[in-house]
Amino acid sequence: MTRILIVLVWGLFVATDVSAGECETCHAEKTPGVTTVWQGSSHAEAGVGCEACHGSDHDLTQPRPIVDAAKCGTCHKQEYEEHHTSRHGMGLHSGWGCTRNMLNRDRSECIFCHDKESALPQSQVMCARFLKQSSAMGELGCNRCHEVENNCGSCHSSHSTDLSIVRSPKTCAKCHMGPDHPQWEMWETSQHGTLSMTRPDLAPDCLDCHMANGSHMVSFGITKTPAGKDLGEAVSATRRTEMLDLCSTCHARGFSERELNRADQIWQEQQALVNQAKEIVEDLYDRGILDPMPKDRPPHPLAGTQLVLDGQMLYEDISHIERLFFKMKKYDFAKAFKGAYHQNPAYTHWYGNAEVKMTLEDIKAEASRLKRAGKGSAAPVVETDRLQSAEEKLDYLKKRFLRGAISRDEYDRERRLLLDAMLPQR
Amino acid sequence: MTRILIVLVWGLFVATDVSAGECETCHAEKTPGVTTVWQGSSHAEAGVGCEACHGSDHDLTQPRPIVDAAKCGTCHKQEYEEHHTSRHGMGLHSGWGCTRNMLNRDRSECIFCHDKESALPQSQVMCARFLKQSSAMGELGCNRCHEVENNCGSCHSSHSTDLSIVRSPKTCAKCHMGPDHPQWEMWETSQHGTLSMTRPDLAPDCLDCHMANGSHMVSFGITKTPAGKDLGEAVSATRRTEMLDLCSTCHARGFSERELNRADQIWQEQQALVNQAKEIVEDLYDRGILDPMPKDRPPHPLAGTQLVLDGQMLYEDISHIERLFFKMKKYDFAKAFKGAYHQNPAYTHWYGNAEVKMTLEDIKAEASRLKRAGKGSAAPVVETDRLQSAEEKLDYLKKRFLRGAISRDEYDRERRLLLDAMLPQR
Amino acid sequence: MTRILIVLVWGLFVATDVSAGECETCHAEKTPGVTTVWQGSSHAEAGVGCEACHGSDHDLTQPRPIVDAAKCGTCHKQEYEEHHTSRHGMGLHSGWGCTRNMLNRDRSECIFCHDKESALPQSQVMCARFLKQSSAMGELGCNRCHEVENNCGSCHSSHSTDLSIVRSPKTCAKCHMGPDHPQWEMWETSQHGTLSMTRPDLAPDCLDCHMANGSHMVSFGITKTPAGKDLGEAVSATRRTEMLDLCSTCHARGFSERELNRADQIWQEQQALVNQAKEIVEDLYDRGILDPMPKDRPPHPLAGTQLVLDGQMLYEDISHIERLFFKMKKYDFAKAFKGAYHQNPAYTHWYGNAEVKMTLEDIKAEASRLKRAGKGSAAPVVETDRLQSAEEKLDYLKKRFLRGAISRDEYDRERRLLLDAMLPQR
Repeated sequence: MTRILIVLVWGLFVATDVSAGECETCHAEKTPGVTTVWQGSSHAEAGVGCEACHGSDHDLTQPRPIVDAAKCGTCHKQEYEEHHTSRHGMGLHSGWGCTRNMLNRDRSECIFCHDKESALPQSQVMCARFLKQSSAMGELGCNRCHEVENNCGSCHSSHSTDLSIVRSPKTCAKCHMGPDHPQWEMWETSQHGTLSMTRPDLAPDCLDCHMANGSHMVSFGITKTPAGKDLGEAVSATRRTEMLDLCSTCHARGFSERELNRADQIWQEQQALVNQAKEIVEDLYDRGILDPMPKDRPPHPLAGTQLVLDGQMLYEDISHIERLFFKMKKYDFAKAFKGAYHQNPAYTHWYGNAEVKMTLEDIKAEASRLKRAGKGSAAPVVETDRLQSAEEKLDYLKKRFLRGAISRDEYDRERRLLLDAMLPQR
Repeated sequence: MTRILIVLVWGLFVATDVSAGECETCHAEKTPGVTTVWQGSSHAEAGVGCEACHGSDHDLTQPRPIVDAAKCGTCHKQEYEEHHTSRHGMGLHSGWGCTRNMLNRDRSECIFCHDKESALPQSQVMCARFLKQSSAMGELGCNRCHEVENNCGSCHSSHSTDLSIVRSPKTCAKCHMGPDHPQWEMWETSQHGTLSMTRPDLAPDCLDCHMANGSHMVSFGITKTPAGKDLGEAVSATRRTEMLDLCSTCHARGFSERELNRADQIWQEQQALVNQAKEIVEDLYDRGILDPMPKDRPPHPLAGTQLVLDGQMLYEDISHIERLFFKMKKYDFAKAFKGAYHQNPAYTHWYGNAEVKMTLEDIKAEASRLKRAGKGSAAPVVETDRLQSAEEKLDYLKKRFLRGAISRDEYDRERRLLLDAMLPQR
Repeated sequence: MTRILIVLVWGLFVATDVSAGECETCHAEKTPGVTTVWQGSSHAEAGVGCEACHGSDHDLTQPRPIVDAAKCGTCHKQEYEEHHTSRHGMGLHSGWGCTRNMLNRDRSECIFCHDKESALPQSQVMCARFLKQSSAMGELGCNRCHEVENNCGSCHSSHSTDLSIVRSPKTCAKCHMGPDHPQWEMWETSQHGTLSMTRPDLAPDCLDCHMANGSHMVSFGITKTPAGKDLGEAVSATRRTEMLDLCSTCHARGFSERELNRADQIWQEQQALVNQAKEIVEDLYDRGILDPMPKDRPPHPLAGTQLVLDGQMLYEDISHIERLFFKMKKYDFAKAFKGAYHQNPAYTHWYGNAEVKMTLEDIKAEASRLKRAGKGSAAPVVETDRLQSAEEKLDYLKKRFLRGAISRDEYDRERRLLLDAMLPQR
């Protein structure tokens, strides 16, 4: 139980090999809180001491030797397998957050961090929003949630094995809250949530639907990515069947099916509104009248001076209209469709649908202002109906074709008309 | 008890007449959750079986045979009477939501749904905001709350008779939350709420004030409509006395009176700020410089190309300044005055008053922009001090008179001056 | 116990001297709620009756004889001392709220309320935001929280002595919530909060860190003012040591130190973003193109037609860009740095950092619009590169120097260049 292990020392640090008993003696004094919690855990009861997870050597100048999820997985095999095939198992990966210690990584992604053929990391991350933050914000603002991939303690807490902690919806709330995905808030005020808080036997909480029977496959039954992209027909169909089977343990299947279909419809109609806004912004970009244009602001960490409105979109160093679009897509759209799947009318309608539609009005108003300013200002104006030269018109047409706003046929037809018009008139 | 009833079949569906015992046998398998809940209810104990509420026939292809409030009312007479004379009893009606199954309807409202002299419904709804939504959003976003009129299960849950459910503030929270009426949030962080959650015997929750002694007359003691309109002197006086009598079971009457008077004053001053904003928007409309003007956007479902700033105001297909006004009136104003009546300083002041006043600044700024744009653009300008023709000036004057911005006397005087000026100058 | 005391009567009112027994007899009928609560209190048990706190005479026409904190302090000496040397002890003072009954006041502040050499108060308050409110809003919106300075009942409730009330985080939530300082919300969804709500023995709530061992020195361990100003090196160092000593009862000291240092770094970087926005607004003011300019709107209660962007900033009677700055500084910045100290990723990043940065984009966009309007309008334009006269250029330079945007050296150099250019060219 107290065997001293010889370990490989990777860096230059003060390593001390201690026995488990020794850990406890010292930490009872240095970190009494942690020690007491561990003493009351089933780990302590089963003789799983400090060294089993942390190793028996550590750098005394470093405050917290990280325990990888993989380490937990040596004993908790099934949970670990389920976890790392689920969305939680790509917490860092999914947001292209800090990729250190990432599991299950696709080799083609290596170039995000390494020069070709080089083992030396150039960068540890590949999320544009993350790349714009200070290290303090990256750690405390981003990784504190995204580290779930590699840190079982994110949910289980660090040294307690009391399952009431990890089964509480409050534990999920730590990350699944806020403007971009208020799943906790929308459950709390849904029929399920309000009923569950009075009579837990009558209605489900987070785990009952998303981690049923203790499963760690949190992607169970979910047909969309966190950002609201469809997972494809095959995956979606399987996932929907999974969820309906679960719903049916309480509800008539037809009832559940109807409600989830309604949520699908809401997802689709809200997505269409987001796309409408996206086209407005793209059109202003094509016209060259975003204020400022990407070329006149700090470059996007990944896309340089390209306009970025997808999952890598920034909320800083952008124009006002893009910032409105960010809110619409990342906050309002998310509330509308996630609110619908969670059956929360206030999130679906007021925080979701109404905000999506009001922000669309804001975006239209700003587009109108920018066009007006383009007309009135001394700056070169590039508006469709006022394009000065045939070259400008051709360039505008090409941009629209390249981003898929018009088809190859439309492009060819329009281009021919423009070229014809360029011919000497007589 | 298990008599088979012959019923009228209105549509084309699979109707099956079953006995109560038969219901239970089949549903124990098909919808075990629901059946178990019912088995533990006082309904089951009293021998009130499935067929008593749902009837003994139903369309097996339809998931949920709706149980009307009126059906519950056959046994729960007093509760039903109280409910349907209260604001809850006009949940659909009040918002002109889906009016199917509406009780207590004024005959003059028939034309909302029927052509004259016709029994065929043309439309089921008469709420402009509802009419703009998809059926999925209408169901999940609107009716999920507004159905309270006709669905006792909205609060009581569907099959349990456990009164702890319906007495929990969480149950009220399902609907009474969010940007437009966060009564739950403002109670939760008020003196009453915070005290009640620690010592329920020392402070009231929702029901203690609004449904005292089990009454279902939720309009008890309330002097304003949900939208903040006064209910008139007579009703208000009665309601205030009701509430003060209740307050006095804990507080000195003079203390309660002073606090409610303060809330009245806050309601009045915030209403004045809303009116100030309204006049700014109306003035821009009169000048023809809203962007876009009602005539240049999809028609309002009820008012066509008229400007609508009242209870039927939309949050979509409007101009940016109207959307700001919507937020101010529907969200900020509501928080200020409802926060005051609920004695919540953060809602009254920060979420209410401060937002009302900041949004007023936003509205003024947008008005300034629109006037400036009107001046600078090539579009026809219709600004008071720059009105080109006497005809335009007369038209502007008339519009202001018609909407009550100026009195008959002012109109006559200004009009005479304008007409005089039109006379040949020499 | 029932001695009748002779007291000084300060005003003209109906004073009635009663014995404690008499109080109880009458109030059991008039205010039964309050009386019952008192009867169950340890005050009643110890024979501390109504008259001990309220006096044995009172104006029967006034509903609530206020009990000063000083009155409580006659028995609860240590608590009172701790309270009134802490930030709570300057609740009114700190916000320059209603200063009546203020303790510990600096004599130099007298001129806020009194003319020189005069004992007659001219004004009771010296908070610009407070001065703009109606008395109802001032009482219900401002003083309901700020009265904590002088009202122990703010937290303890009025007549109960049950300490479970005052120890509940819900009690703190009453004031420490909302857009400007959501400490309750950020604790509730932090690791500490979520853990504490399931296992109170494993994680701290408000009091465990901020009022440890029953101390009433709520400023314990805090290095910033509520508005985010540093308290100076000496105070900050002492406070940090205090807090780290406390953290160390659970955590390794190095771990806690690292986390608090990260929060410091986030505070610093967010402050820099706020300053960036401040300079944009100040520059527009110098150019004379705020819309409206301070001279064209109701005067600031303290600073008249000066631009005010500090702690005395208003949220009303300002321009749109100032209102954006108000939100950024008072709401977004506060969430970012307070979220960081409370270790809440969603508040630090999404509600804080992301909002700070998006509002900065909004501010830049509005600045761009105002500059464009300045160019295009008929109004006198005062833009740096287009300043018409040398006098205007000198004035702009002087304004920038006076508010510290440029150094004395820069000012002198630029001024000389301008003056040289004014000399006849040949």
